[in-house]
Amino acid sequence: MTIWYGGDYNPEQWPRPVWDEDVQLMNRAGVSLATVGVFSWARLEPRPGEYDFAWLDEVLDLLHAGGVRVDLATATASPPPWLAARHPETLPVTEDGVRLSVGSRQQYCPSSPEYRERAGELVRRLVERYADHPALELWHINNEYGCHVSRCYCDVSAEAFREWLRERYGTVDELNRAWGTAFWSQHYDAFDEVQPPRAAPTFRNPTHLLDFERFSSDELLACFRAEKAIIRAGSSVPVTTNFMGFFKPVDYWSWAAEVDVVSDDTYPDPADPGSPAYAAMVRDLMRSLGGGAPWLLMEQSPSAVNWRAQNAAKAPGQMRAWSYQSVARGADGILFFQWRQSAAGSEKFHSGLVPHSGTDTRVWREVEQLGGELAMLSARSGDEAIAGTRVASRVAIALDWHSWWAIEQPASPTEVSYLRALGAWHAALTSLGLVVDFVRAEGDLSGYDLVVAPAHLVATDAQVSNLAAFAETGTLIVGFGTAVLDEHLHVRLGGYLGEPLRRALGVWIEEFAPPAAPDLANAGGKAAPPLALAGDVVGGSAFGTAWGEYVRVEDAETLATFDDGALRGWPAVTRRRTGTGSGSGSGSGSAWYVATLPDPESLRLIAESAAREAGIELPPAATRGGQVEAVRRGSALFVINHGPDEAELLVDGTDLLSGAQAQGLRLASQGVAIVVAEANPE
Amino acid sequence: MTIWYGGDYNPEQWPRPVWDEDVQLMNRAGVSLATVGVFSWARLEPRPGEYDFAWLDEVLDLLHAGGVRVDLATATASPPPWLAARHPETLPVTEDGVRLSVGSRQQYCPSSPEYRERAGELVRRLVERYADHPALELWHINNEYGCHVSRCYCDVSAEAFREWLRERYGTVDELNRAWGTAFWSQHYDAFDEVQPPRAAPTFRNPTHLLDFERFSSDELLACFRAEKAIIRAGSSVPVTTNFMGFFKPVDYWSWAAEVDVVSDDTYPDPADPGSPAYAAMVRDLMRSLGGGAPWLLMEQSPSAVNWRAQNAAKAPGQMRAWSYQSVARGADGILFFQWRQSAAGSEKFHSGLVPHSGTDTRVWREVEQLGGELAMLSARSGDEAIAGTRVASRVAIALDWHSWWAIEQPASPTEVSYLRALGAWHAALTSLGLVVDFVRAEGDLSGYDLVVAPAHLVATDAQVSNLAAFAETGTLIVGFGTAVLDEHLHVRLGGYLGEPLRRALGVWIEEFAPPAAPDLANAGGKAAPPLALAGDVVGGSAFGTAWGEYVRVEDAETLATFDDGALRGWPAVTRRRTGTGSGSGSGSGSAWYVATLPDPESLRLIAESAAREAGIELPPAATRGGQVEAVRRGSALFVINHGPDEAELLVDGTDLLSGAQAQGLRLASQGVAIVVAEANPE
Amino acid sequence: MTIWYGGDYNPEQWPRPVWDEDVQLMNRAGVSLATVGVFSWARLEPRPGEYDFAWLDEVLDLLHAGGVRVDLATATASPPPWLAARHPETLPVTEDGVRLSVGSRQQYCPSSPEYRERAGELVRRLVERYADHPALELWHINNEYGCHVSRCYCDVSAEAFREWLRERYGTVDELNRAWGTAFWSQHYDAFDEVQPPRAAPTFRNPTHLLDFERFSSDELLACFRAEKAIIRAGSSVPVTTNFMGFFKPVDYWSWAAEVDVVSDDTYPDPADPGSPAYAAMVRDLMRSLGGGAPWLLMEQSPSAVNWRAQNAAKAPGQMRAWSYQSVARGADGILFFQWRQSAAGSEKFHSGLVPHSGTDTRVWREVEQLGGELAMLSARSGDEAIAGTRVASRVAIALDWHSWWAIEQPASPTEVSYLRALGAWHAALTSLGLVVDFVRAEGDLSGYDLVVAPAHLVATDAQVSNLAAFAETGTLIVGFGTAVLDEHLHVRLGGYLGEPLRRALGVWIEEFAPPAAPDLANAGGKAAPPLALAGDVVGGSAFGTAWGEYVRVEDAETLATFDDGALRGWPAVTRRRTGTGSGSGSGSGSAWYVATLPDPESLRLIAESAAREAGIELPPAATRGGQVEAVRRGSALFVINHGPDEAELLVDGTDLLSGAQAQGLRLASQGVAIVVAEANPE
Repeated sequence: MTIWYGGDYNPEQWPRPVWDEDVQLMNRAGVSLATVGVFSWARLEPRPGEYDFAWLDEVLDLLHAGGVRVDLATATASPPPWLAARHPETLPVTEDGVRLSVGSRQQYCPSSPEYRERAGELVRRLVERYADHPALELWHINNEYGCHVSRCYCDVSAEAFREWLRERYGTVDELNRAWGTAFWSQHYDAFDEVQPPRAAPTFRNPTHLLDFERFSSDELLACFRAEKAIIRAGSSVPVTTNFMGFFKPVDYWSWAAEVDVVSDDTYPDPADPGSPAYAAMVRDLMRSLGGGAPWLLMEQSPSAVNWRAQNAAKAPGQMRAWSYQSVARGADGILFFQWRQSAAGSEKFHSGLVPHSGTDTRVWREVEQLGGELAMLSARSGDEAIAGTRVASRVAIALDWHSWWAIEQPASPTEVSYLRALGAWHAALTSLGLVVDFVRAEGDLSGYDLVVAPAHLVATDAQVSNLAAFAETGTLIVGFGTAVLDEHLHVRLGGYLGEPLRRALGVWIEEFAPPAAPDLANAGGKAAPPLALAGDVVGGSAFGTAWGEYVRVEDAETLATFDDGALRGWPAVTRRRTGTGSGSGSGSGSAWYVATLPDPESLRLIAESAAREAGIELPPAATRGGQVEAVRRGSALFVINHGPDEAELLVDGTDLLSGAQAQGLRLASQGVAIVVAEANPE
Repeated sequence: MTIWYGGDYNPEQWPRPVWDEDVQLMNRAGVSLATVGVFSWARLEPRPGEYDFAWLDEVLDLLHAGGVRVDLATATASPPPWLAARHPETLPVTEDGVRLSVGSRQQYCPSSPEYRERAGELVRRLVERYADHPALELWHINNEYGCHVSRCYCDVSAEAFREWLRERYGTVDELNRAWGTAFWSQHYDAFDEVQPPRAAPTFRNPTHLLDFERFSSDELLACFRAEKAIIRAGSSVPVTTNFMGFFKPVDYWSWAAEVDVVSDDTYPDPADPGSPAYAAMVRDLMRSLGGGAPWLLMEQSPSAVNWRAQNAAKAPGQMRAWSYQSVARGADGILFFQWRQSAAGSEKFHSGLVPHSGTDTRVWREVEQLGGELAMLSARSGDEAIAGTRVASRVAIALDWHSWWAIEQPASPTEVSYLRALGAWHAALTSLGLVVDFVRAEGDLSGYDLVVAPAHLVATDAQVSNLAAFAETGTLIVGFGTAVLDEHLHVRLGGYLGEPLRRALGVWIEEFAPPAAPDLANAGGKAAPPLALAGDVVGGSAFGTAWGEYVRVEDAETLATFDDGALRGWPAVTRRRTGTGSGSGSGSGSAWYVATLPDPESLRLIAESAAREAGIELPPAATRGGQVEAVRRGSALFVINHGPDEAELLVDGTDLLSGAQAQGLRLASQGVAIVVAEANPE
Repeated sequence: MTIWYGGDYNPEQWPRPVWDEDVQLMNRAGVSLATVGVFSWARLEPRPGEYDFAWLDEVLDLLHAGGVRVDLATATASPPPWLAARHPETLPVTEDGVRLSVGSRQQYCPSSPEYRERAGELVRRLVERYADHPALELWHINNEYGCHVSRCYCDVSAEAFREWLRERYGTVDELNRAWGTAFWSQHYDAFDEVQPPRAAPTFRNPTHLLDFERFSSDELLACFRAEKAIIRAGSSVPVTTNFMGFFKPVDYWSWAAEVDVVSDDTYPDPADPGSPAYAAMVRDLMRSLGGGAPWLLMEQSPSAVNWRAQNAAKAPGQMRAWSYQSVARGADGILFFQWRQSAAGSEKFHSGLVPHSGTDTRVWREVEQLGGELAMLSARSGDEAIAGTRVASRVAIALDWHSWWAIEQPASPTEVSYLRALGAWHAALTSLGLVVDFVRAEGDLSGYDLVVAPAHLVATDAQVSNLAAFAETGTLIVGFGTAVLDEHLHVRLGGYLGEPLRRALGVWIEEFAPPAAPDLANAGGKAAPPLALAGDVVGGSAFGTAWGEYVRVEDAETLATFDDGALRGWPAVTRRRTGTGSGSGSGSGSAWYVATLPDPESLRLIAESAAREAGIELPPAATRGGQVEAVRRGSALFVINHGPDEAELLVDGTDLLSGAQAQGLRLASQGVAIVVAEANPE
């Protein structure tokens, strides 16, 4: 099995002689896969209906001759200026009514029939011409769907939205019921009266907003499906489209089943010490979206990006370390944006595998080194294989785009960052040495011992029941803000949580009581001021952030209480053992409730208690010192030192990268070891 | 007399069976008044010209049967979506030309003839149907006029603005003179050339801006008047519309005479320690708007609201304490938004009298307690009455919307918060135990011993003369930034202040010299850096904020000087005794000038000196400890502990709430006592 | 020769009797030049085609009778409202599509044919009427071109932009090549498809943006040229237009040759301690734009302005001190906005020579004093003359608007303030007692010993070669971010800098590595966190800001290195002696490279080393104590104490202002001395 290596290749930016050097350098670097054509529409169809494929023929033939496989883009991500000139109505419109213009990229309304027709025709021609090209390994549909324009408020989108609503609700009465339009005199007499949630005098109807999020995600998916159908009609080569990690505008759960392989673009900030933890969460998501199957890191940067205010260069070794993090967490491909750093345009200051300054550079030397190593790893097969293997996990976090959309709406109890809530739990579990999957709350949870549902604000009856059922045998942790609303954002009355979860947890919520705004509490920082917590499960000087509430216990133990202000003495962490506390359960499950977002150390303690209770064996430390990530994939243990200080390996076996005995080996900052039991790795 | 109790009741959000429970719970809680129909237009007229009153008939009959009186809304605050669908020109337009859309509320241009006609017809039908309903106690016209859309910049508004200007100025020459269009080539050749102050290249003409504020306030008032006229044609029941405290967009002085009873919506932040002081100022305004007559607290929240970034729950007792603050300061009704907490829509996380989690809750228990207490107080009559009585005050602050609008315009000497300037004086006087009225500078001031005119930037000749005349016998304090401009925002040349005030004060202003921006002074905070002050009247380490100036003394004592930088040694606080200093006056009056906004403690000292000079007896402390508000209404002394610490009562008499002897009684945080002389209160 | 004194005079704001007083007061103050008519279009042409010059005739006659010369404005800076009413398409449009409205000023699209035609006709009439008026000294074309509306995105501008592009590129293929449209599918098939860089989904094409800056600057210049041509057809009196210091939207290099005299409006913040240094840089620019010829300070404020958030009054003496700074740095005129402080309109709180409060004021007394002194200085002639003389400089900084526009574009390595980079070098050189010129990198540099090119991001081949050639004999300092791009913003591949500079410096750049964002480095402040530096040339605790990079040395000495993180040990400051290091050069030149923006003290040390190496003699200190600026103009040494503390003069000669011997004289804060060698000045 191969761990693909390569990246976006845009030869149209360069004169022909450079192409030959490109292929030579690709061979030197061990490049095995090139993504071609992502932004080539204007080059492939310079004017409506006039196509020019000759240059692309040559590129593909050159790559094929050089042994480089091709991930061929459908080139529909950015229409040529002629489309806007002839059809201004294809340009997207903002919430405030501003029609966006040409001159950057992705300037199309996803619902535009004109755009879809033109894009479809281009795909048809590409499939016709290249379906049988020997270099073709993968179809790359469009590019980063929705990265700049995920919502369009134009009249064309308005009509498409109404159509989507008709489909969803059947009658306008049903829409009125779902949206709760009895309030604020919002009752619609006909679908024709509904508009996208354009700028309005004040808070817009929450369900209206949520349905527009759903619609917009679906419209982009419809674009994808249309292209895929055209490809399928003429080619059986697998398709992908590049995801963008935790990308709020698009519900990747609904997309995951539609791609043949999951691929991801992620650009953590090299200067941010929090990047490795965040990136680990992204890698886990990609693995989870594909149901555990290997995925592709489709884009990362060789060094700096260009779109932040400050764009740090990657430190020596950092690109390699982060690449291995992806492999460790299930990637079978390490690809980059882009092959050769552009000499012009908006991304000229985004680093490339071949830098502006050429190959006598640190960046290029690291590119060659990693290429060589991945080729070595790719050569391993059978029991020793790394590529193609899976990563085992007994712990999962429930992730839900509807909750993400809803909990960050205005007119809520308090400002909550959904990703911060998820990330806190992911970090706590990861710090115990566990690998975490993401799951859907309504999915099959039977493979897990421990499931956490944090800030899962919107929960269908099926989700509520499924989580409650899991608690019968497994360990369920429910975080604050969960199952407060149903799928139409109607409150679950009578204490929130929904009846099955309320019974499982043995608690109900009387009232939300979030902490005060920081300026009122003189806390000075951005985060809300902390609420003190007390209880063995949370350790010494514990505090909660982001949320607080009055929890009423009916049938549960109180493991920690709030210790501040009006909430003092009220439960903050509770547990109900379903095998004992309830008296009727037959399993050994338990249901925890956590009514705030505890500080990281407290959360780690809670997670550890729950994991032990769930019967999960926590792995021993792989190193002494450093800030180390250790992940087992297949038969190999990947050890990566993300910190500035050296770490010493404590595990037996052999490091595949150095060939040395692992035990006692020292890993410098950004160092990596891949430890296997075998004595003499190749 | 009754102290009304209740709140907004929106039964259309709930299935029919809930209505019966509502009335039963209202009875349990002592609810006596329900506001019905505020957001019911779309339900009452689901499509143009088709009316459905059956459900409202039933609601009113049910309430009547349950003994609950009705404050019936005209339901015109939020048009149904069909209005925008059929008449997009009724939608309001922002300064930047964005036409706001449906999906929230209040999406109408106040000048729209179409809106006004449709609203008028609805009111006509409501009056026709319900004028004689036995439950009807009050008409509630529209709702929170201008809360989201107080200014509209559309072409319809433009024409209405021009009409208003024609009315105001008669000729375009007069407009040119008033607006000072000789500068910047702004001369208008005809009214038709005038536009609303839409987005422009730079600072817009200040008088143009001010007139648009006046026009916009008047347009909303015209909407109110139109509805009131329709009601009056068919009903003699009193009308109100709910004000919103210190609401900048609308000049409530011009509205006050038009309502039969003043009512107010105020939502102080429960987490902000400054809220009780701010709320006290609001209550005083409401009393003053009605000329001292009892008013209604039309809306407050039982616990949290939903529209801040962080929405704190009210602490135990806080809702009750703040309710009594309103009663103490003249309210004869304590009403809430809303009766039953919504299950859907934009306000579902706004607390209700009946919470999501039901009646086994702190919120509900406090609702029942307060209802019982208010019923007890309502039963008192004759000399013992509380409802219907007035609150006496000998101190007033001049309040002026034109000054508010003008002083916060850009292109001014410095950024000034008008409310901060007023609030500082209100707090200083309140801290002395005084109750403060708000007055118009041109009004009858004869009932007061002390009048403060802070930051009264815009003053007509009548106002200048009236204030100067008051100083002949009373104590007048003029704050910085007063009478700098006339009603057209033309400078009062020759030293500012206007001739009569200049003479009364014995000073004129040479030049403004506000403190530097905080970042330049390395002060770090948001407020401008302080200017040191020296003088007995301001105490030890005094400083001024917000403003500074070069004051020239002609005939006055200097009580304090600036003590910093270029201003060092220049007068900061002066006083002219009109009975002595001027040599000619016969009264005992005096005129103070304060050239900056002193720090709170210094301001308190100044206020105390002036109050003593004015012959005002300062009340003795009502308590020891705590952060206590003590206000006398009628024969009762209301004592409210807003602080976190316990306070001990020092006054004789009986506490009506506990029935105990007052002297020595301990008030916990949020505790309230209502002390009367009588020995055995019922 | 005369040092002009006076300012903007807007009599149309005042009744006729005031005009007589104006002329009397002008005579008292020594006013010699009045700028008339700047905002008079609406008064001169109250409706289309109807002109009224009678009032202006009277004003000019009155001034002439009073001996005051006139700088007559063309009055085209702000069209009357009737233009917008009749031709809404003349109103400018923002990037977001908002059409700006009337009611402020400058509301015209610079490309509008209608505006240009109407403006031209007005100028024609003014020239016809006043070309031979005896008071006429100067034509003042328009006013502060572009100060509010420098870019317009309307359809008229779009067509003008396309025309400009056709002119520049000839073919659309050439445009595509220059803009690098091969990327992001931006290829244009025809000029008609190009739009102004309106709001777009993400980063707009950088060269597109840059060309729009160039176009917009050119469009304003075309307006100026059109008016000048009309004037030239009927008058030989000199023309000017008032510049605005370092004004980013307009490339003053391209304007400088078009004006007969350079004039400038500058309003430093009186409360900002950094203002004198910044103002010195502005004065040096104005002198440089005119090739060293005397220039006019056309506008400054007598005391406070009105358009900042906080508008400090000038301290006593500050206006005078800053006026002399201008004279010292080459000004032959000290003029103000405006003569009489307005009583109404947007600028009524902007100070005037005649304040609101009259002439018994500090401001007026200082006005009279300065007028008298300038008259005394004007009377000096021959060898003793001050007016008309030049300021010598052997040091220059390369200034380039294209680099300014480009380096502050988004999608760059990091956020850089171009002015901060230039200002840091200017301050370092100025602190050595040197007077600094600004030059164009492609200009004649032979008059200088030391040239600095900081952040000169965009460099043509000619500029690169010219700088490299200068280093053969002179001392060249190249700062970070220089010559990274060519004029089309294409990267100079192979190490940046361009071949000639790379050779001259003996270094190339491997990769940019800017410091991390401050929040990531916990630095707390706004500025990026520092990078430690080590090396004798930078002193003890040195650090770099704003930028960092990996510098590869081929043939140079390393004078300082980075001393932090991944950059530790890499060169930060290098030098190549072209006469020795290269082995082939014949001159004594040298080429320095500075890879970051060192802290001020380090930069001063670097500048001092380089200046000494360049053979520049540093002047001895003119004073002891104080924060003193000392500049020699002609035979006089101007010494100005900007600091709060007293300074003592150390120079021989006589102070023209006090008449006293200079040596030992004490200068208070804001004090000024003009020291000449002569014993008995008049």
